[in-house]
Formats: sequence, C-alpha cells, structure tokens
Amino acid sequence: MGKKADEIDFPKDSSEKERSDRLKKQIEFIVEVDKLKHIMRQTYLANGTRKENDAEHSWHLALMVFLLAEHTLEPKIDLLRTMKMVLIHDIVEIDAGDTYCYDEIAALDKAERERKAAERIFNLLPSDQAEEMWELWEEFEEVRTPEARFAAALDRLQPLLLNYASQGLSWHEHEVQRSQCLNRNNHIENSSKVLWDYALQILDEAVKKGYLED
Amino acid sequence: MGKKADEIDFPKDSSEKERSDRLKKQIEFIVEVDKLKHIMRQTYLANGTRKENDAEHSWHLALMVFLLAEHTLEPKIDLLRTMKMVLIHDIVEIDAGDTYCYDEIAALDKAERERKAAERIFNLLPSDQAEEMWELWEEFEEVRTPEARFAAALDRLQPLLLNYASQGLSWHEHEVQRSQCLNRNNHIENSSKVLWDYALQILDEAVKKGYLED
Repeated sequence: MGKKADEIDFPKDSSEKERSDRLKKQIEFIVEVDKLKHIMRQTYLANGTRKENDAEHSWHLALMVFLLAEHTLEPKIDLLRTMKMVLIHDIVEIDAGDTYCYDEIAALDKAERERKAAERIFNLLPSDQAEEMWELWEEFEEVRTPEARFAAALDRLQPLLLNYASQGLSWHEHEVQRSQCLNRNNHIENSSKVLWDYALQILDEAVKKGYLED
Repeated sequence: MGKKADEIDFPKDSSEKERSDRLKKQIEFIVEVDKLKHIMRQTYLANGTRKENDAEHSWHLALMVFLLAEHTLEPKIDLLRTMKMVLIHDIVEIDAGDTYCYDEIAALDKAERERKAAERIFNLLPSDQAEEMWELWEEFEEVRTPEARFAAALDRLQPLLLNYASQGLSWHEHEVQRSQCLNRNNHIENSSKVLWDYALQILDEAVKKGYLED
C-alpha cells in the first residue's frame, strides 16, 4: 500500500547508477503526464469562458480533499492517500480520452480502453511506483475504501459546483435533466451526508433558476 | 500546524447551523480559487502549443512531491504538508498576477501585492482553515523547513523540465541565459543533490541543443 511520510524507503545503499535510472524513469513519466493538461472535460470553468481540463480538475479535487475532509462520515481517513488518488485518477484519459458521464455508448468499452492506458503510462515509472499507481487507480475505480468513497464524492461535487456557477452551460449543452444528475451524484451520500444535502440544495436551486431541466 | 490524517478535529457537537456556515464558506473559497485556472505562467506546456496556468502547474508539482520525495536530502519529510503547500502556493496570484521570475521591476512590489491577495482570499474560509492557509503559504515563501525547501526545489525543476521539453520556447521568448537559469534554480541544491545534478545536465543539454543561450 501507499508509503507514509516517514517511510520513504529508497534503498540507502543503492548505487548512483540505480538512482539515476530511477530518476530517469520518474522524469519520463512526469513529462508524459503533462498531456493531461490537454484532455478536455465537459464542465465549464466557473466563469463559463471555456471548458476545464483534467489537470485543472485534479488540482481542484486535491484542494477539496483537505478543505472538506471534516464532512465525511468516515471516522478516519488517510488524507495523503486520498490526495494521491485524486491527483492520478484521470491519468488514464491521456490515452483513453474523457468519457462524458452521460455518454452510454462510450461507456461500453471505457474499462478496456482505460486499462490499456494504465498499462502503458504507469509502467513508465520504476516498478514499485508503477504498482502504487495501479493500486491507487484501482482503489479509486472500485470505490470500496473510505478514501475512495470520499474521492468519488468530490469527483461528483466539483463539476456540480462549476455547472451551477456557470449557470448550467454544460447541462444545457447536453440537455441533462435533474433526475440524471441525481442518479449520477448520489455517490456523494455514501461518503458525506452534509455534502449530499448541499448537492441537493444546489440541484433544486439550479432547477429554480433554469440552469437545469426538471 | 497542519492536521494529520487521524486528527480531523471538526467539533462533534457542533450544531447543524455551524456546520452549514462552515461549508458555505469553504464552498465560496473553492469556487473563488477556480480563477487560478486563468492565471497564465510564462512556461509552455511540454508540446509547446500554449502556456500553462497556475492550476495545472500546481497539480504537476503535487504529483512530483510523492514521485520524487525519495531524492531529498531531508531525513524525514511530511508529504501531506508539502502537497498542501504546493497546491495552494500560487493562489495569491489570482489577485496579484504571476510575476515572471526574471522580471525585476514587477518583483519590487510583489510581496505587498501578494500579501493583500492572501488577506482577501484565505479569509473567505472559516478562520481555522484561513490560518492554516497563511501558515502553509508563509512557510513556502520563507523556504526554511524541509517541506518548503522540497516544494521550492520542485517549483524550480518543473518549469525547467517543460522548458527543455518545449525546446526552450519560453527561454527564447525572454532571452534567458544559462547563468540566469543557474542563479534562479540553485535553490534545488538545498533540497536535493540528485535533482540538482539532473537540473545541471538539462541546462548543459539545453545549451548544446540551442534551446538556451550560454
């Protein structure tokens, strides 16, 4: 599982050669994932001027992890692990593309496309770190741990906030209805009653203001 | 100081009203900082098609925190704290703008502009979280702790990687010379000998390839 802050276990007697090989792989990965900044999502930025990309979205989620953690139902939650999870959760989209959450056809082969992407991209890293990436990504996808439930809740709440702020631009564009939004977002309730209540208020308000169809 | 994963100390007996007031402030901050996605830096993305913004940059740094932590000289480093620091370190630029690192005139009133910005933006949060933001930001600015030294090193290394990948686009645009780069980036050495050696190799290579003036 993920390394703790006090367990950075880089072998102390590793040769300069081994160390430099690891660094080379790490840098290759770091430069490769720069491409996440080109993967566009369907959500508009709060001011509605353009859509946001996956890197911006991931930054926003990581910030929300530590600002909103107090609202989860989970008695204990590993913030560092949750933060790593949201930082890397969309990296597979560099190859697989962003699958819009209401696109049922694209959803059919999403898992397969994303698995292939993970294979290629995570394996740029030294094997121990590639393995950590896989674990984090699978944990996120399976939504079974407190950390993954919280990450999933934020992954739903963030676009909802932006859709509301941008007066429903993306909802209108895709003719999304309140009932679809509810189905999509009720994940939030599994991690936080407080955030779910808030999400429901936003959706009601959005319908009232004509941002979202009833 | 920053809360640990197992110390989320939201008062258990707080009323629903208090809780909802906190959430309202947190959401206001979260939507406000969406503006970081509009603050453009001077660095081009790796493929050279456009410049990157502060939110993308911050995401990239947070990822580098956990991938490269093994290379710091520091015997112990709090990864969660370092990650929070890089996630928020540029938020003041929403009001103060990005001050290009080689712009000596803009540097004159940078501190004052950024302090005012911090005042306005951090104080959107509940007071305990506003205080945490101040602490993280000041720690980053003062570069005195292991976490801040590592964050500063990554904040230098990341644009260097992108400048090299984009064949020196931004270096050319601003007629930056190797000696300026060295002065600007020798911070890296304070946190990591390995990363500093690597940075020096990149700069040499960049000069050889004509990406950077000697």
